[in-house]
Amino acid sequence: MSKVMPAPGYVHGYSPDEARRLGDQADTLAGLLHSGTSYPAGSRVLEVGCGVGAQTVHLVAGSRAARLTAVDISAASLARARAAVAASAPGAAVQWHQADLFDLPFADAAFDHLFVCFVLEHLADPVAAAAGLRRVLAPGGTITVIEGDHGSAFFHPDSPAARAAIGCLVALQAAAGGNGLLGRQLQPLLAAAGYRDIAVRPRTVYVDPTRPALVEGFTRNTFTAMVAGVRDEAVAAGLVGAAEFDRGLADLRRTEGGTFHYTFAKATAVSPGR
Amino acid sequence: MSKVMPAPGYVHGYSPDEARRLGDQADTLAGLLHSGTSYPAGSRVLEVGCGVGAQTVHLVAGSRAARLTAVDISAASLARARAAVAASAPGAAVQWHQADLFDLPFADAAFDHLFVCFVLEHLADPVAAAAGLRRVLAPGGTITVIEGDHGSAFFHPDSPAARAAIGCLVALQAAAGGNGLLGRQLQPLLAAAGYRDIAVRPRTVYVDPTRPALVEGFTRNTFTAMVAGVRDEAVAAGLVGAAEFDRGLADLRRTEGGTFHYTFAKATAVSPGR
Repeated sequence: MSKVMPAPGYVHGYSPDEARRLGDQADTLAGLLHSGTSYPAGSRVLEVGCGVGAQTVHLVAGSRAARLTAVDISAASLARARAAVAASAPGAAVQWHQADLFDLPFADAAFDHLFVCFVLEHLADPVAAAAGLRRVLAPGGTITVIEGDHGSAFFHPDSPAARAAIGCLVALQAAAGGNGLLGRQLQPLLAAAGYRDIAVRPRTVYVDPTRPALVEGFTRNTFTAMVAGVRDEAVAAGLVGAAEFDRGLADLRRTEGGTFHYTFAKATAVSPGR
Repeated sequence: MSKVMPAPGYVHGYSPDEARRLGDQADTLAGLLHSGTSYPAGSRVLEVGCGVGAQTVHLVAGSRAARLTAVDISAASLARARAAVAASAPGAAVQWHQADLFDLPFADAAFDHLFVCFVLEHLADPVAAAAGLRRVLAPGGTITVIEGDHGSAFFHPDSPAARAAIGCLVALQAAAGGNGLLGRQLQPLLAAAGYRDIAVRPRTVYVDPTRPALVEGFTRNTFTAMVAGVRDEAVAAGLVGAAEFDRGLADLRRTEGGTFHYTFAKATAVSPGR
């Protein structure tokens, strides 16, 4: 849903609240997003765009004997990621590198597996990014991509105002060069980037009052908080009036007593070599 | 998504094409919708609103030793259902009854389990229907409800015209007294109907060109066919112009080369007794 990838107009910002939101999101969704991802002992795994380490801690937990390397373009984010892994898995030997994913400091075919979560949605040319990553991936190696899709959200009670507020987030992310609807596009994206054996699986988060941890961890502290985070920018951009946006937010909060659905996409694919 | 429940303005109609569409849908989705549903030997199971038997054949297959009864209000549909089960499971001993679900010809607490698939979406008061069904359910018995939600559909390439065409289907179903967005409402519905231990699980259909059977069986022959089926009624009702609707249909067909998502809801709950 969001990742610390500095870019002009990065839609979610870099505040302490935002870093906490990313942590809430990752912990709440870890089972949903990471199930099925476990790399073999000794395999060389690269997390591209690790940000503050929200997913890295789960990668480490799921693949204790893999050789994990993590890169991010932000030194500040890397420092937080390193601290997060040290706290959750003392002694885990992750290699950390500050680097741009379009200019990675690794030899050709240096990795057996790539893991790329909530990164491509923020890039103007995600196909070029995914294609470029094949350079550091051994032939026959895998890429795993996870993305959200804000157009997948639906809820009860339904609300045109809430849908309009979500639309503002999508519009602002597009204006910043990203794509908040990327989850639905992973199969064509990876095909265009030259991967084969592409398998996409939807991972649908479903929330109702019988699941209070998800009401708080997902509906309130992840999704509604993310939409609320673009309020001032959306109003300033003239996308919506303040009162209308606030009505949408109030309606999103009302779904905490109803139901909420959001679908992530998780894709795996194989590199045929260069 | 649809069920043969005669009612004024039943949105999907009763044509041979529609019956074939129901069969395509049920066979394509059987694994997705029926997994987890298997009733014990000797247990008394009632399928409410079996229609042409599209789901009944899968119930029989999954619970060979249960004692299955199926009711529908339409004698013609029941005859088709009986033939379908005879063809798919010769010797299966299903009891068939023509009856209105609001006036079932069974004793109180006559069943251990109820199965209700694509029925409540067509009723003006689904809470009253679900509450009324508790009469024939033994205390501690379960109800299983499956519904679609047309507002859950999202796809690539995205298309406002396609979304508008889907909106026509939802509007016509509402005008006929039904609710095409019922999937998202099953938890509050069953709570209001007096059930406890309610557990709802989303079942998301995901389609892309790597899954050609679903492209044909779901995107084309189930979903797009369902939307196409209301074209003339939507245009006659003035909901949309013919050209605009046809553009929406063309855009839905274009998703056969892209991706398509649709989320069903499957709920189970327990009756506390009357």
